[in-house]
Order: sequence, then C-alpha cells, then structure tokens
Amino acid sequence: MTTTATRDRILEEGARLIHRNGYHHTGIKEILDACNVPKGSFYHYFDSKEAFGLAVIDHYWHQFHGAVDQHLMDESQPPLARLQAFFASFREFFLSNDCTLGCPVGNLAQELADTHPVFREKLVSIFRNMEIVFRTVLEDARRRGDLPDTLDIDETAAFIVDAWEGAMLRMKVESDLHPLLRFEQTLFDRILR
Amino acid sequence: MTTTATRDRILEEGARLIHRNGYHHTGIKEILDACNVPKGSFYHYFDSKEAFGLAVIDHYWHQFHGAVDQHLMDESQPPLARLQAFFASFREFFLSNDCTLGCPVGNLAQELADTHPVFREKLVSIFRNMEIVFRTVLEDARRRGDLPDTLDIDETAAFIVDAWEGAMLRMKVESDLHPLLRFEQTLFDRILR
Repeated sequence: MTTTATRDRILEEGARLIHRNGYHHTGIKEILDACNVPKGSFYHYFDSKEAFGLAVIDHYWHQFHGAVDQHLMDESQPPLARLQAFFASFREFFLSNDCTLGCPVGNLAQELADTHPVFREKLVSIFRNMEIVFRTVLEDARRRGDLPDTLDIDETAAFIVDAWEGAMLRMKVESDLHPLLRFEQTLFDRILR
Repeated sequence: MTTTATRDRILEEGARLIHRNGYHHTGIKEILDACNVPKGSFYHYFDSKEAFGLAVIDHYWHQFHGAVDQHLMDESQPPLARLQAFFASFREFFLSNDCTLGCPVGNLAQELADTHPVFREKLVSIFRNMEIVFRTVLEDARRRGDLPDTLDIDETAAFIVDAWEGAMLRMKVESDLHPLLRFEQTLFDRILR
C-alpha cells in the first residue's frame, strides 16, 4: 500500500472509532490494529494524537461536503427543496445506524471544547463553514422570493446549525428519528415560511 | 455533619465536577478529597459510581426546577414573558461561567447515551420532563390566545428542548453567549409568532 493509502485508511478507521467512542476513549493501538498497520508507524503519518484528531475532523468535514455537493448543489431543484433533500439524506444515514452515534462534530464539541483550545478553534471553524453552506442556500431562496422578507438570513443559517445539532443529540438519546423530523418540520413550516 | 448533609455535599461537589469534566473523567477520590470526606465512606452513601451518576442527574433536575419555580410559575406575568425570563436567567448563569460548561444534561447525553443504557433511560426521562415544563407554559399561552392557531404545542415544546440544547452546545464551542440570544430570538420572533 502507498503511504497516502495507509494514512487514509488510518484516518477512516480513526474517524469511525472516534464517532462511536469519542476522542479520549479511542486508542491509537486500537485504530492501528483495526487497520493491520504496525504499531510503530503511526508517528510516521501523524505528529501526535492531537494532530491526528484534527485530521479526523477534516475527514468529517470532507464527508459532510460530499452530501453538500450531492444535494445542495443540484441546481435542477429549487433551493428549499435541495435543503429538504439534504436533511433527508442525513436522516437516511442515521436510520442505517439505528439512530445512534449522533453528529461526530457535535460529539467532539461536547467532549473537547472546554478543555482543548486547539480542538475548540478547529470546531468553531467547522461550525462556521456549515453556516456558510446553509447561508448560500438561503440566499438563493431569497433571490427567488421564496423566503419571508423579515427573515434574517445570517442568523437563521447559524440557528439551523445549532438546532440541527440539538436534534441529532436528542435522536441519539431517544434512539429515535423523530427529533430530526421535528427539526425539519419546524424549520420548513414555521421558520422559513 | 449528619449522614444526609454529607451525602448532599458529595452530590453537590460531584455535580460540579461532572459538569466541568464529564462522568468518566471525574474520579470518586477527587470528589471525596474536595469534600474532605474519608475515601472509604463513598459506598456508605451510594451503591456504585453509576448509582451516584444517576443521583447527580436528579440533582441537575432539581436545580433546573428551581429556575422553573422561580420564573415559569410567576403568575403575575403572562406565559410568554415568563418563558423569556426563564431563558434569560440561564443566560445569566452561563455568562457568570464565561460561557463554558454547557448544559450538564446535554453533556452527559453526548457522553453516555450510546454506551450506558441505564443513563440513556434516565436522560430520556429528564428531557421529557423538560418538554412537559415547556408544554405547560405554551398551553397557558394558548388559552390566552397568545399563540398562532397553527402551532403544534406538543411538537414545539419538544423542539424547544432540542434547539436550546443545540444553542448551549454552540455557546460552549464559541465561548460566546450569542447562540443563546439567537435561539431566543428565533423562538419568540418566528416560531411562537
């Protein structure tokens, strides 16, 4: 395997394990064992567990952006329909995981924000990038006249990030998809109308 | 000190430390040291760390209910003004903690829901009790004609819990109060209007 392929495999496995068990409860040895990579070679790919954790967050962002490209960039649909398809695709993902796990970025925020400034800074930037994604769709919708004039687009884009995070947390606690449906209904039927 | 007083002190200190560091990262020895209670006596008060954790969650609920009694039961004010005062009082609390910590119940949900069924069940019931609190205020508001006829009160009460949790998470990541203000504005200006 090439160096890049091995690094990618460690990242992918690490992202999966950290999503399931958290950052502190995922050991480097556990990741390398799952990848069949010799123990000593981790520091060939990453400077530290922290550097690895930051790369895992980038990996989550990359996955998130896959769904953005697939659903939010589909210009054959009006902007709000694209937004609906986007949230529905995440619902499918969570359903296929029995409504466990929650949002990987939200989990790390809860676990690390207060205690690890480097992670906090990274997570702030990820949440802000999520805001930009939603703001872009809302701006498209406004240009078409699909949003009420009184709606503050910047604040609503940020609120969508926060309320969606809360809905994913509740989904995880209840092991039930309903909080995500409730979030979508409140968003489309009350906030954006 | 009486037995009850010692137990209460252990609980209070444990609740403070778990709020700050999480359940797994708070050791029993650390709690007892902070309380000046001899190490061997913990199991005189609690059957296990898990039983202690469940009692800590009840302690958080008790604290939450203090704010409910103070702000939401104040019948001299109309129901939606009471709800505004309630959220403002939590904003004050978080401001006095530099916008760190987040919601103790949301933190434990993130940390334990997927892996500890006993905690999951307890946290489900706490979130549902929070819903009941908000539903009661919304029902009062409906009786006075203060809410739009199209608003689904049950779903909105549950959504308030979820979106507030998300706002508290974002506050913690950003170390900034603004996500809480944004939550309140979206709630009162768009959802309940």
